[in-house]
Order: sequence, then structure tokens, then C-alpha cells
Amino acid sequence: MTKVCLIVGAGAGIGLATARRFAKNGYHICMVRRSDQAGLDKSINGLIADGHQATGFILDVTACDLLEALIVKIENDIGEIHTAVYNVGAQIGDRDLGSTTLNVFELGWKLGTFGLFRLAKALMPYMVKRSLGTLLVTGATASVRGNGGQHSHAATMASRRMLCQSLNAEFAPKGIHIAHIVIDGLIDAPDTLGKMMGLAAFEDLKQRKGYEKNGLLIPDQIADSYFHLAHQHPSAWTHELDLRPHSALPWWNHHKLDL
Amino acid sequence: MTKVCLIVGAGAGIGLATARRFAKNGYHICMVRRSDQAGLDKSINGLIADGHQATGFILDVTACDLLEALIVKIENDIGEIHTAVYNVGAQIGDRDLGSTTLNVFELGWKLGTFGLFRLAKALMPYMVKRSLGTLLVTGATASVRGNGGQHSHAATMASRRMLCQSLNAEFAPKGIHIAHIVIDGLIDAPDTLGKMMGLAAFEDLKQRKGYEKNGLLIPDQIADSYFHLAHQHPSAWTHELDLRPHSALPWWNHHKLDL
Amino acid sequence: MTKVCLIVGAGAGIGLATARRFAKNGYHICMVRRSDQAGLDKSINGLIADGHQATGFILDVTACDLLEALIVKIENDIGEIHTAVYNVGAQIGDRDLGSTTLNVFELGWKLGTFGLFRLAKALMPYMVKRSLGTLLVTGATASVRGNGGQHSHAATMASRRMLCQSLNAEFAPKGIHIAHIVIDGLIDAPDTLGKMMGLAAFEDLKQRKGYEKNGLLIPDQIADSYFHLAHQHPSAWTHELDLRPHSALPWWNHHKLDL
Amino acid sequence: MTKVCLIVGAGAGIGLATARRFAKNGYHICMVRRSDQAGLDKSINGLIADGHQATGFILDVTACDLLEALIVKIENDIGEIHTAVYNVGAQIGDRDLGSTTLNVFELGWKLGTFGLFRLAKALMPYMVKRSLGTLLVTGATASVRGNGGQHSHAATMASRRMLCQSLNAEFAPKGIHIAHIVIDGLIDAPDTLGKMMGLAAFEDLKQRKGYEKNGLLIPDQIADSYFHLAHQHPSAWTHELDLRPHSALPWWNHHKLDL
Repeated sequence: MTKVCLIVGAGAGIGLATARRFAKNGYHICMVRRSDQAGLDKSINGLIADGHQATGFILDVTACDLLEALIVKIENDIGEIHTAVYNVGAQIGDRDLGSTTLNVFELGWKLGTFGLFRLAKALMPYMVKRSLGTLLVTGATASVRGNGGQHSHAATMASRRMLCQSLNAEFAPKGIHIAHIVIDGLIDAPDTLGKMMGLAAFEDLKQRKGYEKNGLLIPDQIADSYFHLAHQHPSAWTHELDLRPHSALPWWNHHKLDL
Repeated sequence: MTKVCLIVGAGAGIGLATARRFAKNGYHICMVRRSDQAGLDKSINGLIADGHQATGFILDVTACDLLEALIVKIENDIGEIHTAVYNVGAQIGDRDLGSTTLNVFELGWKLGTFGLFRLAKALMPYMVKRSLGTLLVTGATASVRGNGGQHSHAATMASRRMLCQSLNAEFAPKGIHIAHIVIDGLIDAPDTLGKMMGLAAFEDLKQRKGYEKNGLLIPDQIADSYFHLAHQHPSAWTHELDLRPHSALPWWNHHKLDL
Repeated sequence: MTKVCLIVGAGAGIGLATARRFAKNGYHICMVRRSDQAGLDKSINGLIADGHQATGFILDVTACDLLEALIVKIENDIGEIHTAVYNVGAQIGDRDLGSTTLNVFELGWKLGTFGLFRLAKALMPYMVKRSLGTLLVTGATASVRGNGGQHSHAATMASRRMLCQSLNAEFAPKGIHIAHIVIDGLIDAPDTLGKMMGLAAFEDLKQRKGYEKNGLLIPDQIADSYFHLAHQHPSAWTHELDLRPHSALPWWNHHKLDL
Repeated sequence: MTKVCLIVGAGAGIGLATARRFAKNGYHICMVRRSDQAGLDKSINGLIADGHQATGFILDVTACDLLEALIVKIENDIGEIHTAVYNVGAQIGDRDLGSTTLNVFELGWKLGTFGLFRLAKALMPYMVKRSLGTLLVTGATASVRGNGGQHSHAATMASRRMLCQSLNAEFAPKGIHIAHIVIDGLIDAPDTLGKMMGLAAFEDLKQRKGYEKNGLLIPDQIADSYFHLAHQHPSAWTHELDLRPHSALPWWNHHKLDL
């Protein structure tokens, strides 16, 4: 029986790295992203070229019923979803309250929280029937504390995190592992940070903080912990862990006060 | 100049108790609730009969533009909103994931999070202009941890809490006090718990746990801390406190393990 | 019957301000500090000159049995201890691990944690017999997160905080209110910050951040919340709140990332 | 060059399982425990019989200078300590405040906190010189919340946790990985739970909750996550994760309220 790893929000950072990590261990990869057919094709073709099984889908998780229909389709046509990764971003950059429109705030909720809720509603019945499955959910610094300019992002990421706790309470006893990963740092990924900053500024940042000193989170290394989480034994499951570069300040640490 | 205390979600529990507490100290009270004109009239008339100033509004906070228009109207016609209390409940009782519909989940978000966001967007410009004001936000146990059956409630209350942290980051330096109160226990209020349980079961509960032993949160006592928060000096503001009956277990404590 | 407010760690900052606040409401004040008889006399005489009742004690809380004996003495000779404030500081300034000696670390534990434990052991039996009493415990930013140079301070303040949670679990149902106050900012107090920085640097700091902009925590304003906590009704007790100047960053907020 | 995994508090549960996990990957294992030479010999001989390298030490971590001398001895005579596991327990069972003696409380601190502080002081200079090393620290439910009867245990485990945060702040930028693992459940280990409950009651518990349903934490599975943590890439380090059986309630969840 084919076992599927479904990745929702599958860009060229955590998404692709996780895809590669699970593909190497025999999973059929289903990558879902909102746009960029060319980028998706490149990821899928790369996986296939390496001898893996992979299928890509362009799909808007905020659109009515599409995500639900996809779950049915994958379960019917491809295989059992053993691991699902909800990796949809909801970052809009820093905006003060006046600049955060009602529409932006609602979109943040749809991407950050409602999409995960809908995924869980569609997916849990399959996993419960098999008493087997893992749902990995990507969080952020904003999952654990609000901040200036983060009205939309922190509100929806905290909501996502607490939804994970509620899902865990209902489904862990039924054999479904729900894990929430707090990504507490900048990721070395062209699709997210690179796009946000512009490529030149991003390369300059990498020069200053980057690979050499492991100052940015490397997606392949993140994926290694995602894979570990998905294969923990039910007697010793992790519900939450944090990941950050060794040289980065954790969210709970200030720079020293400048008196 | 008339100073106004605006209470959104003003039922016969925390809402009315807070109204009375602030009215006694000279505030013009504006009470807003979704329904029950008779209940609202009773509250308002009671305040007026005691010599206070009070105005009531029936208004659906999920309806487009109404809350925003009300802020303008109060500021223009009644007085300066010095304190606003966001006390809208979002509890739907325990429901497992399958029984939590998309509509219910979205309504939970509109009541729990989006309403506060819209209130803040409409109100903050007035308060910032005066470098003065307090926004008190009622939280719950579900604000700080998910639980079985709390998919909707915990997701929206955690979001509300984190929105308060983001609002605080932007507005505290501008002189606006944002405080989040974690109500970690059952309230002795006919409009909420009484309605949810049925009156007979509620009276029976009160017999067993109630007033005599202070086993339920008494709204007037809650209101006392709301009033204290609203009058803290800017050199020593509280952003968050918890309130529970002395005989109740805090959210972080289990009953002992039964081995 | 005389009701006593006992303040352990009673310097010229939070200690004296709390003393004045409770004295005004009829408490007999007992101030305890380790050294500075002249400073203690000045505080006590000031209270008496204002028509209050007050007694001072020089006592080392790390010394065997002295604190325990003092509780007995106060209860026998002065009155019932209705409120006790544990306000002993354990800050040693930032020191890296190599510079934090075993002796310093142990002293930090004795001041920060063990003293509170001993106070509670000596005091709780009296309060339990009366089903009445409040124990207010001063915490710090270090109570909720470790940081560079804070090996000793954070270890002992986190321990103090968790001891408060355990005390609360045992004694709140017996009518004793345990509250922990997270002082998350710099206090405008000559005995602590003034001593640590030197008076000139402190005055310069106050010029830049001080009174005018409420950029430092003013002890009298802190005391106002201590008093409120001690007089909450048992149906609505706070176990923890934070206090900081409106213009200060809370412990969970970074300055913006400098990319 | 021999790389050493040093385990302090190495009983037959997490200690031995971690020893086996690291031994399989080529580490020379150094196991340290306070007593039970026969038990220690059995562990060491078992490792050696399986073709691994292992050395055992009976040592009281509360005794002056012994732990410090051991670090020097291992570094000089055996090899470089690449991973150290601080797994010393500080649980004394539930005791109310009156039954928790000063001596017991102090011993709890020495085992729970001071021993880790001393280990870090002795070990970090070696690791810093190599810009390489991992310190894994075993935590417990009591690390994150106080509870009735946990005056000693929660105070010292919270302190241990916060010491880890402070160590992380100083040493992570220097290439030393500090990770704190919250063991939030009962471990299937004869040396701890078996000893505490008595063997018959423990076997009865296992029948009811045990292996079959993965209702207890299995040490080998815990060890798998310890090993993962010790081999994370510096670009994506975890500072804290929790571990519990899938069927156990997390510390933040109550049983439902029984109204």
C-alpha cells in the first residue's frame, strides 16, 4: 500500500526539503501550493528524476471545498495519507494597525487557521479509521507572542497553535500524532525571505549571517526534525518543539538593555 | 467633558457588574449587546435609577460597519471613550471536531477575534489623539491552552490574547493601556452559565459550589479588578492577570494522578 | 485585633512604598531588612511620624532560624500577620558562567527561593488556622525566562515563581491568597538600581527615561497593585500579574530584527 | 579521537537507554550514578558484552568537588565529552508543605539545580575550546508548573529549566547545544516508578496502562529523541521539546469539569 506524505504550502523552502526527506524513505509525495506552476513542476520533476514518487497540485486553500476534495482524491487515487504537513505561511510583513485592513486580517485567518481546521476535518476521519497518522504543523515566533506590526500574523499563528493543542487532545488518544513546530528564526529560502527582501538584499544578508555561520535555518535541517517527529514511537511523542539557528536569539531573550 | 466606559458584550454578568463599578465613579456607561432588548433596558434603567448616566445599544458585532459606526456616534454624541471593555463571549460548549461546523468555527473567530480587531481599529485613533485610554479584554481558560472539544473556542481566544499583545506593543508607548484578563473559572452569571446549563442545574451547582464558598467567580468582584486595571498609573501597568475562585484549580493544575 | 503587614526585604523602593500603602489602611507595618539600620530607622520613623504603627527589624533571611523566630515573635507580641510580602532581591548583575561562583549561586538560591520557603513554612500554620491571609511575592523578568549572565538570578527567580504555584495549590483552597507579581522593568528606587548603577548614572538615566515619561516603575504605583491584590475577594483571586512602565518593552518582545 | 557520552544520573531507565543508543553510534559511554554498584556493573557489562565501550562511576553529585574532578579525569583519560546528559532525578513524591523539611528542600535543590550548574561550570570550558558539544537536560512536568505536594520538586525543576535557558543564551552562539526535555508522563522504568510504587503495584499499573497501549513512556523511545537532539545541525537546533505517551493528558489539559 502506498503511503503518502501530503505537504500543504509546499514552496521551495521547508516544503521541498520535507518532500525530499520523506521521499527518500519511500513516501509518495503530494505537494500543494497556491501558485507558481513552474516552480511546482520543477520540484516534482526533481523528485521523480531522483527516483521518487511525487504529484503536484496548484490549489488555493482559501477556496471553498477544494482542499476537502483533494484529500478524498488522494486517498482514493494515490494512497493513504500517513503524514500531512500544514506549512501555509500567513506572514504579511510588519504593518501597524491602521495599515492592516479587514481583508488582510481575514485572509491571515483563512491561511493561518481556517485552512488547518478544514484540513483536519477532512483528514482525521481517514487517520482515525487506521489509528495511524501524523499531522505536522509549522509555527513561527508569532505563534507564541504578539509584537508591533504583527496584529494579523500573531493572531492567526497563535490560533493555529492552540488549534493544534485541541486537535491533540481529541486525536492523540486515537493514535494520531499532532506536532507543532515553532520556527523561531529566519529561513534560508528564496521563496519566502528572498521574495520578501529582494534577492540582492537576501544574498547580502546571507553573506553576513548565512550558511557559513549557520545563521539562517537551513530547510534540509528543519526537514530532518520533521521526519524525526513523524516517526516517534507512540509511547514518547513530542507535541511541540522549537527550531532556530544556534547563533540566533530565542524569542524570549532580549538584547541587553542599553542603559 | 463626559468620559465614557463602553462595554461590548454587556450581559448580566461581567458586563453589568463592570457597568455599575465604572458608573459609580462618574463614567457614562454605554452597554452593547447582540439581543435581548428587555434585558438591556433593565440594566440601563437600573443604572439610571441609581443616578448614573447610561445608554444601551442592541448591535451585532459580526455585522459589517455597525460597531465602527457606533464608536463614531458615541464619540460625537455622548463623550470620550476612556475605557472600552471587549467582553464578547465565543464559547459554544464542548464539541468534537466532527461536530464543529465551518460556520460555527468562523462565527467563533468573528466574535472572539475579528470583533476586537475592528473595535481597536475604530477606537485607537481617538485614544491616540488623546494619549489616553484603556482597552480591557476578557479572556478565558481557553486563551492559554487548547483542550478536547475546544477547537473553535481555544483557537479564537488564543488569537484574541495574542492580538492584545500586538496591540499593546503598538499602543502602550502611545499611552493606551491594553489589558487581557484570563477568567479561569466558572462565573456566577445567569446569562452565560445559567443559560448554558439550564436554571435548575445552575441553582443546584450553586448550592454545591456556590456563593457560600466563593466557588464561582462573582461578577462584582471581577469588576473590581477591571476597575483597578483601568486606573493603574502608566508607570506600572499590568498587561495580563488571571482571576479564579480561591477554591478552583488553576488551568495548569491537574487533579492528582489516579494510579 | 491588630492586623500586621510583614514586609521581608524592605528597602526604600517597593518595600517602603508598600509599607506606606498598607499603613494608611490601618495595618501595623513590620519591616525586615538585612542591613542599614539607619535606613530602616528612617523608614519606620517616617511611618510613625505620619501617625502609623510600624516596627523594624534588621535580620539576615539566610541565617538559620531567625526568620522563623521573628514570625512567632510578631504573632505573639504585635498582631496577626494578614499580609506578608516577600520582596527579597536576588539580583547580582550580569555575570557569565565562569564568573558565577558556587557561593554566589548558592546565595542566590537562599535569598530567592529558600527564604520564601522558610517564610511559608513558618507563616502558613497561622494563616490556615484563621483561614485568612495573603502572601505577595515579588518576581522579576528573570522569573519567566533565562538570559545571558542570568544563571543565578533566573534559576532562583523561576524557582520562586514555581514555589508560589505549589503554595497556591495547597493553600488557596484553605483561604490563603498567594500572588506572584512579575516586575518586568526597571524600578525608580535608590536602594536597588541607584546602588547598582551609581547615583550619577542613575540620575542621568532618570533624566532620559524617568519620571516625566513614566519610563521607570514608580514604587508607590507598584504598591497600589500590591494593595489591590491583597484585598481581592476570594471569589476572584489573581495568582499572577505583570507590571511594567507603559513605555517599556515587555519581556516577550524584541526590538525589531535589524536585517 | 574517542568521543564520550557522559550520563549523570544513569539508572536503568532513561540513563541506560540513552547509553545504549549513543553506544551503538560509537560513543564511549560514561555512566554516573549515586549508588547501586551492582546495578551499574550490570549496565556497563551489558554494554561491553554488546561490543561497546563503557565506564561506570559511583559518585554523589551533591558531594563537594567530585563531579568536577570526574570531568577532568574523563577528558584526560578517556576522551572528549561530546554529549553530556544531566538526568539526575529530584522527585520526592507528593509532600505537603508541613512535611517538606528544610533538608529535603535543600537536597532537592542540590540534585535538581546545583548539580547541573556545577556540571556546566566544569564542562563548558572544554566544549567551548572545541566549539562543539551538547548538553541534554531531563525535565519533568514539574519543570513547567507547580502543584500540590510539589513544593520541592517544582521549585528545583523550574530552576533547572531556567538555568538551561541562561546556559543556552551564553553557549549556543559558541556552538554548544543546550536542550531541555520535558518528560511529561510516567516512565516505564523499574528504578524510578517501580521503586516508588513497589514492584507489584507497578506491574499492576503496567497491566492497566502499560506497554500494550503505550501508556507509559518507554525509555528506548525517549532515548531516540535524545539522540536526535544531540545530532541536530547547528542551523536548526531545538532548545526544548516535550515527550509523553500518546494516551496521556498533557500537563496543560484537565479532565473535563464535572458539573
